[in-house]
Amino acid sequence: MSGKLVLGIDYGTDSVRSVLIDTADGTELGSVIFEYPRWKKGLYCDAASHRFRQHPLDYLEGLEYTVREVMRQAGGVRPGDVVGMTLDTTGSTPVAVDRAGTPLALQEAFADDPDAMFILWKDHSAMAEAEEINALARSWGGTDYTKYSGGIYSPEWFWAKVLHTLRSNERVRAATYSWVEHCDWMPALLTGNSDPLTLKRSRCAAGHKAMWHEEFGGLPSEEFLVRLDPLLGGLRDRLYSVTWTADVAAGRLTPEWAGRLGLTTATVVGVGAFDAHLGAVGGEIRPGYLSKVVGTSTCDMVVAPREQYGHKLVRGISGQVDGSILPGMLGLEAGQSSFGDVYAWFRELLLWPAAQRFPEAESTRLLGEEILAMLTEEAEKITPATSVPLAVDWFNGRRTPDANPQVRGAVTGLTLGTKAPAIFRALVEATAYGSRRIAERFEEEGIRFEGVIALGGIAKKSPFVMQVLADVMNRPIKVARAEQTVALGAAMAAAVAAGVYNTFEEAQEAMGQGFEKEYIPDAGRAAIYDDLYRRYLKLGRFIEETLS
Amino acid sequence: MSGKLVLGIDYGTDSVRSVLIDTADGTELGSVIFEYPRWKKGLYCDAASHRFRQHPLDYLEGLEYTVREVMRQAGGVRPGDVVGMTLDTTGSTPVAVDRAGTPLALQEAFADDPDAMFILWKDHSAMAEAEEINALARSWGGTDYTKYSGGIYSPEWFWAKVLHTLRSNERVRAATYSWVEHCDWMPALLTGNSDPLTLKRSRCAAGHKAMWHEEFGGLPSEEFLVRLDPLLGGLRDRLYSVTWTADVAAGRLTPEWAGRLGLTTATVVGVGAFDAHLGAVGGEIRPGYLSKVVGTSTCDMVVAPREQYGHKLVRGISGQVDGSILPGMLGLEAGQSSFGDVYAWFRELLLWPAAQRFPEAESTRLLGEEILAMLTEEAEKITPATSVPLAVDWFNGRRTPDANPQVRGAVTGLTLGTKAPAIFRALVEATAYGSRRIAERFEEEGIRFEGVIALGGIAKKSPFVMQVLADVMNRPIKVARAEQTVALGAAMAAAVAAGVYNTFEEAQEAMGQGFEKEYIPDAGRAAIYDDLYRRYLKLGRFIEETLS
Repeated sequence: MSGKLVLGIDYGTDSVRSVLIDTADGTELGSVIFEYPRWKKGLYCDAASHRFRQHPLDYLEGLEYTVREVMRQAGGVRPGDVVGMTLDTTGSTPVAVDRAGTPLALQEAFADDPDAMFILWKDHSAMAEAEEINALARSWGGTDYTKYSGGIYSPEWFWAKVLHTLRSNERVRAATYSWVEHCDWMPALLTGNSDPLTLKRSRCAAGHKAMWHEEFGGLPSEEFLVRLDPLLGGLRDRLYSVTWTADVAAGRLTPEWAGRLGLTTATVVGVGAFDAHLGAVGGEIRPGYLSKVVGTSTCDMVVAPREQYGHKLVRGISGQVDGSILPGMLGLEAGQSSFGDVYAWFRELLLWPAAQRFPEAESTRLLGEEILAMLTEEAEKITPATSVPLAVDWFNGRRTPDANPQVRGAVTGLTLGTKAPAIFRALVEATAYGSRRIAERFEEEGIRFEGVIALGGIAKKSPFVMQVLADVMNRPIKVARAEQTVALGAAMAAAVAAGVYNTFEEAQEAMGQGFEKEYIPDAGRAAIYDDLYRRYLKLGRFIEETLS
Repeated sequence: MSGKLVLGIDYGTDSVRSVLIDTADGTELGSVIFEYPRWKKGLYCDAASHRFRQHPLDYLEGLEYTVREVMRQAGGVRPGDVVGMTLDTTGSTPVAVDRAGTPLALQEAFADDPDAMFILWKDHSAMAEAEEINALARSWGGTDYTKYSGGIYSPEWFWAKVLHTLRSNERVRAATYSWVEHCDWMPALLTGNSDPLTLKRSRCAAGHKAMWHEEFGGLPSEEFLVRLDPLLGGLRDRLYSVTWTADVAAGRLTPEWAGRLGLTTATVVGVGAFDAHLGAVGGEIRPGYLSKVVGTSTCDMVVAPREQYGHKLVRGISGQVDGSILPGMLGLEAGQSSFGDVYAWFRELLLWPAAQRFPEAESTRLLGEEILAMLTEEAEKITPATSVPLAVDWFNGRRTPDANPQVRGAVTGLTLGTKAPAIFRALVEATAYGSRRIAERFEEEGIRFEGVIALGGIAKKSPFVMQVLADVMNRPIKVARAEQTVALGAAMAAAVAAGVYNTFEEAQEAMGQGFEKEYIPDAGRAAIYDDLYRRYLKLGRFIEETLS
C-alpha cells in the first residue's frame, strides 16, 4: 500500500457502490454495494406514467453505509490515508432545492412529494416539455442551443424536467429557489458549499444535459427560456454560468461528514460527473479508441484532443462537451437507445404464453431465466448469410446518429421455417449494425479510431454478442478487466482531484487494470456483414422515409 | 328422401371422406372419414427432402371403407338409389402408370418404391425441374405456356414432378408408359376405362397444373417438351389432348367395383376434379362472388361467364381454365401460399422456449393447444391504428398476384412495448391484406364481385380473423353452412353427371345449404385499414425491390 487511498463512489440506477482503491497501482481494497431501500419498494414511482423519482435519503444512507463498510472491509486502513473521493451519478437527475441548496424532499413539508425528489434519468414525465423545447429551438432565429446535443432535446434532460415540475406542482414551484443535478449536489453537500449560486457544477452534466456551452456564454439565454415559459423567468440567474471538469477539487469533507463517514477533513472531494463518462475513464479511454458501455442501451464515447480537433462538431451526435470525459479534450458521446433491451424484449415476447397461462409456475420462472442462454446456444450455430432474417434495432427509437425517437424496430426475411434462434441472431446483428453506424459517423466526420473498448454487463457476460459486434464493426474489441469500471474511474478522478496525479492520463497509467479479453473480427464473417450492413441501412432508410 | 342419392367422395391430404346426399334438398344422410394408414405412419415420405408420396392402396382401402360405412350409417338405403358419385382429390398429385393405366406401385416389383406412388401436391422434390421449366418458358420464342398459370410454373405441378421422377429413377422410367392425376385415375378405375390414351382427363387438373389449353391445342408442344429434356420425348402422345369438365359422366361402376362398394352398376361416376374447385361449387359459388377457402393457405376462386368475359386473361393469377369450376364459365383461381400457416408459425415461435426446455411437460402441451386462443382474446381488444406493428404475409413466398416465391415475410413498427398479441394482430391483418390484394387484382382486370363466400377451417372457427378480413377487404363475407363443403360440391357434381340436374347451378339451387353467418365490414375500421393497406403495399414493394 502506498498510503494514498481514494474512494470511487458510483451511484447507479438501483444502488450505490463504493470502492476503496490504492492510487499506487489501482488495487481494489474493498467494494461495497447498497440498494436504495425506498426505491426498491417502488415508492414515489409510477411506471404507467413514466414517473421515476428517488429520495435523497436513499443516497445519503447509501453513502454512509458503503463508505463505513468498505473501510471496515479493507481493514487496518487509517482514515487519514483516504486522500480523495469522487462521486458519479446517473443523469440527468435533477432536484428542486431551496435557497440553501437543500433538496425540498429533505424538508418535512415535502418529505413525501415525488416532485420534491430527484427526477431519475429515465423519468419520461416531461415528454410534452421536451417537444416544446425542440419546437422552440427549431423556430428560434438565434443560437441553435441543441447543436451540441445532436439537434434533439430529450424528455430525460434537465430543462424538460424542470419545466414540467414547475408547471405541474404549484407547492413545489413556490418553494423552489434553484435546481441541482445529483452529481453536483453530493460533493456540494459533503464539502459544505451547497449554495446554488456558488456550488461547483459539473461540466459533464451541464454540457450534456442542460445545453450549457462556452460558445453560448453558458446556459441558454433568459429570452429563450422565458419564451419557452415565463415560469422559467429569472431561474437562469439562480443557476450557473461557470462549470468544472472532474479533475478539480470541489473542496474537503466538512467535519460533520468526516464524522459521519468515519474519515477526516483532509479528504478532498472531487467535482462530480456522470457514470458513463467516468466508466470510460476507468476503462482507460484514450484518443483513437471508442469506449462503449454495452448494457440495456449503449453509451459510445470518444475523446478528441483539442490541439488536433479544435471545437470540431460531429453531425448528429448527442453530446459534444469540452472536458466532459478527459479534461483538455472534447468529450463526444453517442449511444443506442436500446441494445440489451432488445434482447430482453424478445425474451418477454417468447415468455408471453407461459407468463400469461402459468404466471406462478416454477417452469415459467426457469424459462424466464434461461431463454437468453438457450437462444444464444442455438444462435451461435447459425452462419451469417443473406438468407437469414434481417432486423433493425430501433425498438426504442434511435438516439444516434441523428436522433429520431419516432423510428421503430423491424424484422424482415421471415419464412415459415424461421425459428426463434434465427430471429435472436438477427436482433443481435441489428444492435451491432446500430453500433457500426455510430462508429462510421465518427469516422465520416474525421474522428478516427482503431479499436473499441467495451464496458458494461453485456461486454463481460456475452461472448456471442461481443464476437458478432467485432465481426460487424470489423474492429478488435477489448473488454476492460476491472469489475467496477465506473467506480474505478471515479477513484482515478479522485486521485487527480487530490493531487496524487496531475492528469487523468497519469492516473489511468498507474491505476488502470487493463483488459481481460480481446475479440478479433473474423475476415470472412466481416465481409458477409459488410453486405448485410448495407441491406440494414437500406431497410432503415425505408422505415424512416415511410414514417411520414 | 327423393330416392335419388349421390355420393360425394373427397380425398384430402390426410384422409378421405364420403358423404351420402339426397339430391332433392341436399340433406346429408351420412358422412364417414378414413385416415390413410400408410401415410399416417409416415411411410414413403421424407420431410427433410420435401418428399411426400401416397400409396394407391391408401386410396382404395379408404374408398371401400367409407362408401360401405356411409351406406350402413344412412340405414335402409337401397344401393340402387345411389344414382351417382363424384370423387375429388388434391392436386397436382400424379402417378406413373403402365400401359394398362395401373399405378406402378400396384405392381409387386414397385410396391415400396416412392417414385411409383402418387406424388402429393405438397411434394417439393422437383424444385430444380420447375426452375428449368420457368427458364425455358421465358426464353422460348413461341407460345407462352405459362400464361394461364400466372407466369410461373411450380414444383408442385405435373410436369416438374414427371420430369424429376423420370430423371431420378431409371427403373421407374423404364416401366412407365404414361402419367395420371389422382382425380383422373379414380373414376377411370371405377368405370373400367383406365387406358391412359382414352381415360377421361379432368379439365381442372389439366388446365391448372399441366399447361393444357385449347389455345395451345392441348398440352405444350412436343418440341417444347423435348427441349426441356429429351427424356420427355413421345410422352405427349401417350397423354391426352381432350379434357372434360366435372358435369360429364366418366362411366358407370364396373361389376367388380359395384360389388366391392356394395352399390350397383347403375351408379354413374362423374369426371373427377380438384378439391378446392368442388368446394367452391359446394359453397355455392356464382358470378359476382369470390369463393375463398381459408385454411393453412387460401384458394381464391371466381367464375366468369364466357358470354360476359370471353377468354379474358387476368394478369398474375395462377389458374385460368374454361369450365374448371362451373362448366361454361371461366374458372379463375388465385391463392395465398400461407394464411393459417402464418399463425401456426407464430404459435411455434412462442412455443419455442417451452418446447425446447420442457418438451414432455403437460404445461407445454397445453400451451401449444391454447396459444392461438389466448392471442386471439387479447388481439381482439386492440384497435387498428398506424401506431401498431405492420406485417407482410409472405412467409411462404407469394403465390398471387404475380407469383414470387423469393419474397419473405416481415414485421415492422416494433417497440420495446410491443407484446405478442399486437404482433399476432399484425399477422392476421397482413394475411387479410394479402387477400385484399388478390381481390383488387381481379377488379383491376375487370372481374367485379360484390361479396365473398368463405369456406374452410378458419372461416368456420375464427370469428376474429373473419371480421378482420371483412374490415380489410371492405366487403361482406358469407360463411358457407355445410360442414363438408367440398364433399357436398362433389355430390352436386355427381347429381349433374347422373342427369338428376342439367347444370351445376340447378344442383346448387336444390342441394345448397346456404350460409351460417355473414361478417359485415365496419366502416370506421375499413377506413383505417385503407390507410394501413397502402402502407402494406409500400412495404411489400420495398421487400420485393431489395431482393436483388
